[in-house]
Amino acid sequence: MEKSPSSSSLGPMGLNIAQSFFRPIDKAAPLSPTSRRTKVSVIGAGNVGMAIAQTILTQDLVDELALVDAQPNKLRGEMLDLQHAAAFLPRTKILASVDYEVTGGSDLCIVTAGVRQNSGESRLNLLQRNVALFAKIIPSVAKYSPGSVLMIVSNPVDVLTHVAWKLSGFPSNRVIGSGTNLDSSRFRFLIADHLDVNAQDVQAYIMGEHGDSSVALWSSISVGGVPILSFLEKQQIAFEKETLENIHKEVIESAYEVIRLKDYTSWAIGYSVASLARTILRDQRRIHPVSVLAKGFYGIDGGDVFLSLPTQLGRGGVLGVANLHLTDEEADRLRESASIILTVQCQLQI
Amino acid sequence: MEKSPSSSSLGPMGLNIAQSFFRPIDKAAPLSPTSRRTKVSVIGAGNVGMAIAQTILTQDLVDELALVDAQPNKLRGEMLDLQHAAAFLPRTKILASVDYEVTGGSDLCIVTAGVRQNSGESRLNLLQRNVALFAKIIPSVAKYSPGSVLMIVSNPVDVLTHVAWKLSGFPSNRVIGSGTNLDSSRFRFLIADHLDVNAQDVQAYIMGEHGDSSVALWSSISVGGVPILSFLEKQQIAFEKETLENIHKEVIESAYEVIRLKDYTSWAIGYSVASLARTILRDQRRIHPVSVLAKGFYGIDGGDVFLSLPTQLGRGGVLGVANLHLTDEEADRLRESASIILTVQCQLQI
Amino acid sequence: MEKSPSSSSLGPMGLNIAQSFFRPIDKAAPLSPTSRRTKVSVIGAGNVGMAIAQTILTQDLVDELALVDAQPNKLRGEMLDLQHAAAFLPRTKILASVDYEVTGGSDLCIVTAGVRQNSGESRLNLLQRNVALFAKIIPSVAKYSPGSVLMIVSNPVDVLTHVAWKLSGFPSNRVIGSGTNLDSSRFRFLIADHLDVNAQDVQAYIMGEHGDSSVALWSSISVGGVPILSFLEKQQIAFEKETLENIHKEVIESAYEVIRLKDYTSWAIGYSVASLARTILRDQRRIHPVSVLAKGFYGIDGGDVFLSLPTQLGRGGVLGVANLHLTDEEADRLRESASIILTVQCQLQI
Amino acid sequence: MEKSPSSSSLGPMGLNIAQSFFRPIDKAAPLSPTSRRTKVSVIGAGNVGMAIAQTILTQDLVDELALVDAQPNKLRGEMLDLQHAAAFLPRTKILASVDYEVTGGSDLCIVTAGVRQNSGESRLNLLQRNVALFAKIIPSVAKYSPGSVLMIVSNPVDVLTHVAWKLSGFPSNRVIGSGTNLDSSRFRFLIADHLDVNAQDVQAYIMGEHGDSSVALWSSISVGGVPILSFLEKQQIAFEKETLENIHKEVIESAYEVIRLKDYTSWAIGYSVASLARTILRDQRRIHPVSVLAKGFYGIDGGDVFLSLPTQLGRGGVLGVANLHLTDEEADRLRESASIILTVQCQLQI
Repeated sequence: MEKSPSSSSLGPMGLNIAQSFFRPIDKAAPLSPTSRRTKVSVIGAGNVGMAIAQTILTQDLVDELALVDAQPNKLRGEMLDLQHAAAFLPRTKILASVDYEVTGGSDLCIVTAGVRQNSGESRLNLLQRNVALFAKIIPSVAKYSPGSVLMIVSNPVDVLTHVAWKLSGFPSNRVIGSGTNLDSSRFRFLIADHLDVNAQDVQAYIMGEHGDSSVALWSSISVGGVPILSFLEKQQIAFEKETLENIHKEVIESAYEVIRLKDYTSWAIGYSVASLARTILRDQRRIHPVSVLAKGFYGIDGGDVFLSLPTQLGRGGVLGVANLHLTDEEADRLRESASIILTVQCQLQI
Repeated sequence: MEKSPSSSSLGPMGLNIAQSFFRPIDKAAPLSPTSRRTKVSVIGAGNVGMAIAQTILTQDLVDELALVDAQPNKLRGEMLDLQHAAAFLPRTKILASVDYEVTGGSDLCIVTAGVRQNSGESRLNLLQRNVALFAKIIPSVAKYSPGSVLMIVSNPVDVLTHVAWKLSGFPSNRVIGSGTNLDSSRFRFLIADHLDVNAQDVQAYIMGEHGDSSVALWSSISVGGVPILSFLEKQQIAFEKETLENIHKEVIESAYEVIRLKDYTSWAIGYSVASLARTILRDQRRIHPVSVLAKGFYGIDGGDVFLSLPTQLGRGGVLGVANLHLTDEEADRLRESASIILTVQCQLQI
Repeated sequence: MEKSPSSSSLGPMGLNIAQSFFRPIDKAAPLSPTSRRTKVSVIGAGNVGMAIAQTILTQDLVDELALVDAQPNKLRGEMLDLQHAAAFLPRTKILASVDYEVTGGSDLCIVTAGVRQNSGESRLNLLQRNVALFAKIIPSVAKYSPGSVLMIVSNPVDVLTHVAWKLSGFPSNRVIGSGTNLDSSRFRFLIADHLDVNAQDVQAYIMGEHGDSSVALWSSISVGGVPILSFLEKQQIAFEKETLENIHKEVIESAYEVIRLKDYTSWAIGYSVASLARTILRDQRRIHPVSVLAKGFYGIDGGDVFLSLPTQLGRGGVLGVANLHLTDEEADRLRESASIILTVQCQLQI
Repeated sequence: MEKSPSSSSLGPMGLNIAQSFFRPIDKAAPLSPTSRRTKVSVIGAGNVGMAIAQTILTQDLVDELALVDAQPNKLRGEMLDLQHAAAFLPRTKILASVDYEVTGGSDLCIVTAGVRQNSGESRLNLLQRNVALFAKIIPSVAKYSPGSVLMIVSNPVDVLTHVAWKLSGFPSNRVIGSGTNLDSSRFRFLIADHLDVNAQDVQAYIMGEHGDSSVALWSSISVGGVPILSFLEKQQIAFEKETLENIHKEVIESAYEVIRLKDYTSWAIGYSVASLARTILRDQRRIHPVSVLAKGFYGIDGGDVFLSLPTQLGRGGVLGVANLHLTDEEADRLRESASIILTVQCQLQI
């Protein structure tokens, strides 16, 4: 970490030492064209934004990290707190400012900012205020990093990703919502927990809305490559459809539970978004359930709606959407989820 | 992560699947004697405790992580939030309870719990209340992990490490305070920032009290192996002693500044303590400035006092204290720092 | 790394410095019971053994690494070459000796040693000479690390794992052959390469003999959780069964090809075995296709035969074998593979 | 890893599946300008080159790795062997060709190629043949990656780095020899071994020629920030100058010893060069002893000579040379080392 505005006391001595400590061997040498940096910006330095920023830092994904928040004190406190760990981390330039200029040239911009619900406020009113906030944030982000991938984490994530897409003017492959990537991780944890296997050996997707209408893709769940449903059938293990429903309900419920218990969620969303950042920045071409422009997929055709589908991600953003075979029921639920999001969307003024 | 008490809905089906999914090859086989786990417990699930827990988890240091806190809701929320990231992390067993039994068999117990200052409360009164809290915590920790290394992070860290040593009955090589490990990192960041070098190339210690009487060891600072003071002298670079004092003041001030700006510190202390945990658990024999029983070192002989000295750490805790040559002034300041801590200590009732 | 027999020139000075550099704070303190180390031994310091040892070292899996080989010069050269990297690696104790005592107390013993085929020698004769070699190695390994997990890498791996099991007297859950773990990785690479996805998103097993009779489990292959065969069927994509056969043949062929091109294989087997070591040592409970005692699984009942099945591994070795549904053809082939191995086995004198 | 020329059997089916598995959401979307990849090329696929390539791969430093060697079979074998590990590694594109075009657009080109000494051949003749080899390699490398940093590992490294600089036409800050970076690591290992500390806590440089005239900078050695020589003086510990000489001799000798024992060195040079690659590619601004154009530093003024000095490295290559204070004896030896290299250099025909 380097050159924070915080450091002033060494003053001229600092300069003196630096100049005499090192001497260049070739002053006339042109700067190498390879001097490009990987840069991520995080908008919103609240619990979610900071958990994301810190996890990205720990996982050594970037050369430069910029934080933006409307509260300058909180923001500067968070920046200093990360910078003070310099001796324990690879050298990363950490910047922070209320001014979006600091995000210039980012490869990935992650938006976590959102307004808080007022007492008695309707969900629609809350959403409309978030749209107003995005109307300030997104054009500035898009202006300073016109080639970046835009990742929306603020909730309701599917509608706000749509809003961000509209406001940014970006092509749809560069606007992504964190969507059900975390829900899917919770789903995998619950399944792994019960089978006493490693969650990384469980393939399981939650698709659709990041919220109550999300769809658990039971037909695609596999453990160590073994499809669970057909395994159960072939082993003639009796199970109630209700049991499966309960597991899905537990996933939906678990987000509410964490918020009820500790007031917010932070760690899991931090790891989840850092994992998406890794796939994008290192061009890993991995498949994640994230919120993308879903029109034309799985019979969704009511309008431009963003919701989570199994998406292959890489440096350019969305590379493609996996063409799974859903059961009729799963497909119906997915379209229903789309129409729920669209209904909200239509009430909004962007 | 596994077997959280949270998971119940799969019920009998979970059992059925698990039993039929895997079959043992040798039911009579004795459990391998190599089945030992590395376990860390963190007492106190506040901002500091959770930043430490999360960083230890990200850095893949342990097989088992136990959290204890007096607030069961907050505690359970934090546990679930970490567990939900299972798909993004190596498999680690995460436990949480208000009951210290959950910490049983830990290799390292990290205490971050502390009471908050009441409005108008004297520092001594606050400290006395923290001592009362430690009187509950430490004997329980020591009872369930009698062979563990005890790491105190709660403030005032030097006095409370002494208190923990007394209450635990542990030998002094297994009771350590996080001390000035973080101050030293801040110091290294400031120097690296001004010289535009990597903080990992800067060797610089803050010793003594973790607080206002800490001592910056200018005579031992080196960058890339070059002692700074003798470099300045030999290069005949003029510098005011005051300038050096100012850098040290900036280090002391920076902790207060972060607290003023964001209400608490978390990330840097998280990385700092995770770094100590790594050295201890992986027996790295690295040298860290941490709070240890200092009696008999550097002419400190007024009583049993804990303060930060350059200490070699390993699996057994403290392996030894480095025998640096201090300037007379540095040695005087260190002894002064010791006597300031002792004065507070003598007013306490343990 | 530490205390190699190589270091002698510092002599008494080294001692002097070490004694005065650090001073213990509590000489009477008992050594902590937590001072246990994770230790791996690699038997055979050839290309395969060293690629495994180096990858385990890079991935920071152990506190202690012991190498054994019959050639003392080569062995010492390899040990020094690894030790010289100390400044770039976490501190790990690296030991090497022709005497098996150096392996004492290992958690995992990896056997890569094998004799080379003489010109004109029959495969059976070669195998019989390898059995003779194992008769020297395995009892020594078992004697010094009676609680360890034994991992056989030497070829033909399935028969030699059976031999090692017999010679060690270990329960079958602690004797594992690297088997088709690498074949499966090659299979996943080929599939990922063609679909332009990340190989880590491909679930695909090769089972049975590590060799010509191995069985590709097409019915269990999934990409991002989507079963390939049913995907092809549902999308009504025509494919020749022959095409699938060709991919499997390419996997079998690729080992021969690498050996033909560079005389041996090393890197991929190094990563493959290090991955197994990680699952075992860190108790990850992941599922890997490795060679285990297969009697009683999938209708294999002709005798005690080791071959690769999808196996859940952890600190205690084999935790269980996954109970997949195979097609009739796959099951037939698997039993055929077992009988091929058994035929060879019966000709041996152990 | 992807698109190796090896994969052909899936043929049309591969295409079919890939097309139907994923569908793009926005076919008109322009490719993101952020789609830049970090690329390293390694010239020479012998033991040294492959240890470097594999360590860079394991440490997840690059998006693309290109190998070049004159022997197409060996080269293809090594490429396949690395590709087969795809399931165990982050997705990296691995390319290999006898044609330098494959290196196009590299950020860093590492040259390890060299001819072998013929029986009875003089060192000068050997060197002259290596110069002839470089006359083929370097212009091709420079042509396809005109903005890259060039890192020479082939021996004699100092002279060949000079040759590479001349042949490349690159500015001197983009031509670096691995120099004494490895010697310094061996030095740090030996010191750490004797003091029973972590080698990462030892700061110690070998400067000058990578060879017999190298210079151990005793005056700059520190352990945990404590200068060793002044520590010894202040503690009045007697030591013979001869003892120090012996340690340095042991460093010089250890390279010869490893070669005598195992025929070549590989692991330590692999880690050493991967460490340099990390500092350069991630712009870490760390200080390493590497071979740079030394004219004008430390009184070296006899001509354009490359030898190892403590150098700050970053994305642009050499950022500066540290201006240490040497003792008169150390400075004399360094100039002597320079003149030894120059003498050889003058006999060469470039």
